[in-house]
Amino acid sequence: MTPGSQRPDDTTAQPLRSDAERNRGRIIAAARRVLARDGLNASMASVAREAGVGIATMFRHFPTEEELVAAVFADRMDAYADALATALDDPDPWRGFVGYIETACAMQAADYGFADVLTTTFPSAKAMEGRRHEALEGMLQLSARAKAAGRLREDLDSTDIALLLMANAGVVNATGGAAPDAWRRVVALFIQSLEAPARGPLPASPDHDALHQTMLRTRPDGLTTMEPDTTS
Amino acid sequence: MTPGSQRPDDTTAQPLRSDAERNRGRIIAAARRVLARDGLNASMASVAREAGVGIATMFRHFPTEEELVAAVFADRMDAYADALATALDDPDPWRGFVGYIETACAMQAADYGFADVLTTTFPSAKAMEGRRHEALEGMLQLSARAKAAGRLREDLDSTDIALLLMANAGVVNATGGAAPDAWRRVVALFIQSLEAPARGPLPASPDHDALHQTMLRTRPDGLTTMEPDTTS
Repeated sequence: MTPGSQRPDDTTAQPLRSDAERNRGRIIAAARRVLARDGLNASMASVAREAGVGIATMFRHFPTEEELVAAVFADRMDAYADALATALDDPDPWRGFVGYIETACAMQAADYGFADVLTTTFPSAKAMEGRRHEALEGMLQLSARAKAAGRLREDLDSTDIALLLMANAGVVNATGGAAPDAWRRVVALFIQSLEAPARGPLPASPDHDALHQTMLRTRPDGLTTMEPDTTS
Repeated sequence: MTPGSQRPDDTTAQPLRSDAERNRGRIIAAARRVLARDGLNASMASVAREAGVGIATMFRHFPTEEELVAAVFADRMDAYADALATALDDPDPWRGFVGYIETACAMQAADYGFADVLTTTFPSAKAMEGRRHEALEGMLQLSARAKAAGRLREDLDSTDIALLLMANAGVVNATGGAAPDAWRRVVALFIQSLEAPARGPLPASPDHDALHQTMLRTRPDGLTTMEPDTTS
């Protein structure tokens, strides 16, 4: 940082650009830090505090919490979509499938907030839901290729990937910084269980609509019950 | 209920037994309902509200939150220990191992609070930690028998069971009532991945001490940061 430049955490400095633009960037940066640390259970109040803005200011920029979450994770969703494109380009369908699972789970491990985002739907954040829908389509292609190559068990269902991401989120959230690579072992076991030929039958998959309801239902309360207050 | 008997939810009735005894039972019953519904993130304040007692009363009965959790889950820990004894009695070591995993995961699915208790340590609740230590010892015997019978992969580590319980807690907490049997499919995949012969090597297990730290670290804040207030 050059001498005299504005410190982004200095709330008393005069703005060099418009307040609105500065506040928007500050809120997103603060939300990124808070959500990465605390997951989606982080409160909007703690984001506002971290950003040094009032709750009312935050709600002017992000009328719904879903829009804030979508703004924070836009680049992560892009990276997730890129991982899928890379996997689909792999000439070895099984290696592509495994690589995608490992990348998605690694992204969860690197960011607790994103771990939850991947298994939560945000109906009002259209761009993010569009990305999620593309990812599901890509995942179906990836699975079909790996099954056609005889490497992926035939009874794999698209809901299994959502369940695997939920399981990995459980491990990542529980082990965190103390055992940061523990998830790798769980995911390796999972991948081995998916390799063809299957070692046995499986219980039925959950209904797709029920699982979608689940992804709505588990929208953490911390981000749904906030009401704007009157500060700043 | 016979006419004229005291209704346990009637806070205005005169006590038939001592206040202290009545309140203790009421707190445990309320905590059981609240923790089953909300998991260990439930606040002590919501337990007190559900029980119809003041926070100070709760703290007289349960000076630490760990003691309350231990009292609530004492019967579940007993059932967990019984499941292990049953598994060790099974003449088929692999069937015993699988049955134990399925029972433990089913207990997590039936009670969100217990799902977290199984992967959290409570150093000040000596009886519960004693139970947990016994369970670990039993689990090591069960694994050794299943390996000796050639049915369980040789590289299974005792930390793998803790990781599996963390993964299942993630699925159970995420899918909940909307897809109440989804965990069965995940656990079935896991069990197939554990069957000998192993399909491939695994990344290293986390260090035992690190995993223990993890189980301390993730003690949910809701039950650690409460301070008694002055009401009732």
